[in-house]
Amino acid sequence: MQVEVINTGTELLLGQVVNTHVGYMGERLLGLGLRISRQSTVPDGVVIKGILTEAIDRSRIILVTGGLGPTPDDLSREMTAECLGLKMTEDAAVIDAISRRFSDSAITMRPSNRRQAMVPEGAEVLENDKGTAPGLYLTAGPDDELVHIFLLPGPPRELYPMFEDQVIPRLHAILGNEGANVPVCRNYFFMGLGESELAGRVEESLNAVPGDFEIGYCLKAGGVIVRCISTGDNACVLGGMIRDASPEDFVAEGEAAIEEVAVKSLVHSGESVATAESCTGGLIASRITNVPGASRIFNVGLVTYSNEEKCSLLGVPLSMIEDSGAVSERVAMAMVEGCLERSGSDHCLSVTGIAGPGGGSETKPVGTVWIGLASRGKKAVAFHYRFKAERLYFKERASSVAIDLLRRRIQGYL
Amino acid sequence: MQVEVINTGTELLLGQVVNTHVGYMGERLLGLGLRISRQSTVPDGVVIKGILTEAIDRSRIILVTGGLGPTPDDLSREMTAECLGLKMTEDAAVIDAISRRFSDSAITMRPSNRRQAMVPEGAEVLENDKGTAPGLYLTAGPDDELVHIFLLPGPPRELYPMFEDQVIPRLHAILGNEGANVPVCRNYFFMGLGESELAGRVEESLNAVPGDFEIGYCLKAGGVIVRCISTGDNACVLGGMIRDASPEDFVAEGEAAIEEVAVKSLVHSGESVATAESCTGGLIASRITNVPGASRIFNVGLVTYSNEEKCSLLGVPLSMIEDSGAVSERVAMAMVEGCLERSGSDHCLSVTGIAGPGGGSETKPVGTVWIGLASRGKKAVAFHYRFKAERLYFKERASSVAIDLLRRRIQGYL
Repeated sequence: MQVEVINTGTELLLGQVVNTHVGYMGERLLGLGLRISRQSTVPDGVVIKGILTEAIDRSRIILVTGGLGPTPDDLSREMTAECLGLKMTEDAAVIDAISRRFSDSAITMRPSNRRQAMVPEGAEVLENDKGTAPGLYLTAGPDDELVHIFLLPGPPRELYPMFEDQVIPRLHAILGNEGANVPVCRNYFFMGLGESELAGRVEESLNAVPGDFEIGYCLKAGGVIVRCISTGDNACVLGGMIRDASPEDFVAEGEAAIEEVAVKSLVHSGESVATAESCTGGLIASRITNVPGASRIFNVGLVTYSNEEKCSLLGVPLSMIEDSGAVSERVAMAMVEGCLERSGSDHCLSVTGIAGPGGGSETKPVGTVWIGLASRGKKAVAFHYRFKAERLYFKERASSVAIDLLRRRIQGYL
Repeated sequence: MQVEVINTGTELLLGQVVNTHVGYMGERLLGLGLRISRQSTVPDGVVIKGILTEAIDRSRIILVTGGLGPTPDDLSREMTAECLGLKMTEDAAVIDAISRRFSDSAITMRPSNRRQAMVPEGAEVLENDKGTAPGLYLTAGPDDELVHIFLLPGPPRELYPMFEDQVIPRLHAILGNEGANVPVCRNYFFMGLGESELAGRVEESLNAVPGDFEIGYCLKAGGVIVRCISTGDNACVLGGMIRDASPEDFVAEGEAAIEEVAVKSLVHSGESVATAESCTGGLIASRITNVPGASRIFNVGLVTYSNEEKCSLLGVPLSMIEDSGAVSERVAMAMVEGCLERSGSDHCLSVTGIAGPGGGSETKPVGTVWIGLASRGKKAVAFHYRFKAERLYFKERASSVAIDLLRRRIQGYL
């Protein structure tokens, strides 16, 4: 069944409000086994009529948001009625509900609010107890190809409860599929390998699997999300095979941030971490402390941005910085070893690199970074990377990779 | 001129990624005097062909995002060529650029990446130095009704620079309006007062100004953005009046981050800053080091998350923490004074608070925070706030306010 979403609202096209309705509806509809096949945004006003006419031609379920307010540019009701050739009448119950709302909040009802009680003939009113704009449910076309049209309010706090309480039950009835075998969407987050490399491994791993499933890939948060949509009973099996396509690179099911996974692993193992950051400037410490409960595993982070502070706080010899440069394997190792000793933590991370835009050279171009990792009782190691990215994204990438190294260490892959 | 935006990406319709492209483009297009008349989202795959065919019929400028990646569901190139009846050939320069990108980052190029170098005949390649997917610019139809089609990458960090550097100049050329009297949209960023308070002051200040302009307000980044759309010649005068409505709270024109303004002010005054953070966990240091050139004004940041580290690194007396609690005026002052002494910087910031969700009490609920500020030769001060917000937004708010206190100090308002 083709599902189409139409969002009306000039503010959505001017960049003043981000459209979060589509994602919300997409997620909820998937739970019913429905997928949005097309979503459109049009400005306020009469244009809704044209796009609704098109949509009725190609879709069976149409969800319209916005244009139910009291101002002159709110025309979803009127244009839908015109489009379907329906007369409008004032609905006494709706007038009552609106007047009650106004008297409850001691605001005077304005004549324009009466427009919100106009209902096309044959439409069902969807009550709105969060605002003055009721929703509407209409059908069009022949019985065997009935098109279902929902007019819904734009503000999320009015839309979401109406969608949950009044749209979803009606969709269930339309589909007649309560308890049926609806598709399951699962995400698997990997770090440390590219999209095409991972895709190759996943396709290989799923090569021999029969059945109905769909795999998608999406770059996100310095890693790759593998999305698997399947119809229920084989979701777990597929998930296992996807994870096993590259087990050491697998971070988490869902969209958990890498720092969340690392902090949870530390809490689980009862260990702690400290940080010694130069080019990431505190971002690793900040990401670790984004996770509730971080105080159980994190005591101290040292942002040693200048060479002097690398020496005085971490005990890096000045001669080493003069010989090898601050961005070098030796300094990354000395930083992380100094941090381990100073902090008394079980693990330490160090980062030294060139975030740019200035500061690069032929041998050490902007984007060069060394990440050190030390753990109590293990030899310190340092890894070299180059992230060609502007400053903020460079910091994001370098901090993600550092936290992922920690994750690999705690999980025994490193 | 009808402008249409088509976003491809199944993830946008499944609720995994929020579509922020529309808003960004809408804002930038307005600066050229253009408005988006319709935006659509369709899933990955062949469906792009149908909607592109429709769009060519009704619009003159078509902006397509997504579907330029290396995986099999990325079909924007191929479908556009089919739609316009164009052959595709491999572009040697693009192959070169992609191979170079892979060899630079020491990742193996896979055969699927070669698809990204296929270019429909007659198309202009829009270089992408942030990723492997080049953009494409094509035209269709008769000369007097030429339709302009831009195929652009989906990831924001690749899309935005390409839009700024390669799409906007081409749109200027298409419109032939360089220097014409298009509407000017300017933003003014304020911190430290509420939206309605600021609106009151701005309206009062602009009360007597005649002429055609439109004022809007938008909460953003812990402050308020005042948006002024006007037609050119009075933009400067209006801007001056808006700034003067609340000069000490005015941060910057545009949407400059508070840390950018603070760092620039420090570079200008030749002074330095250090940080001693507890609940913000390194976020202040990270935001300061987000600004290019931060190394000139920032040497060290101490993330003293545990009480022991507050004592050992900053010299806060343990008895003070035991008497007053770590989240207190006295500890915020001791932290910032210890940091000033230890770091030798000109200014220091300290933050101690309860980020939640746990750790609150009746007298010190979650969201309580003390921010200390010390400057060489001035008495240290500490301010009390309560940010009722979940953990990440609490950190964001607390760090913004701290950096804004520094901005006020450097600018002489504090």
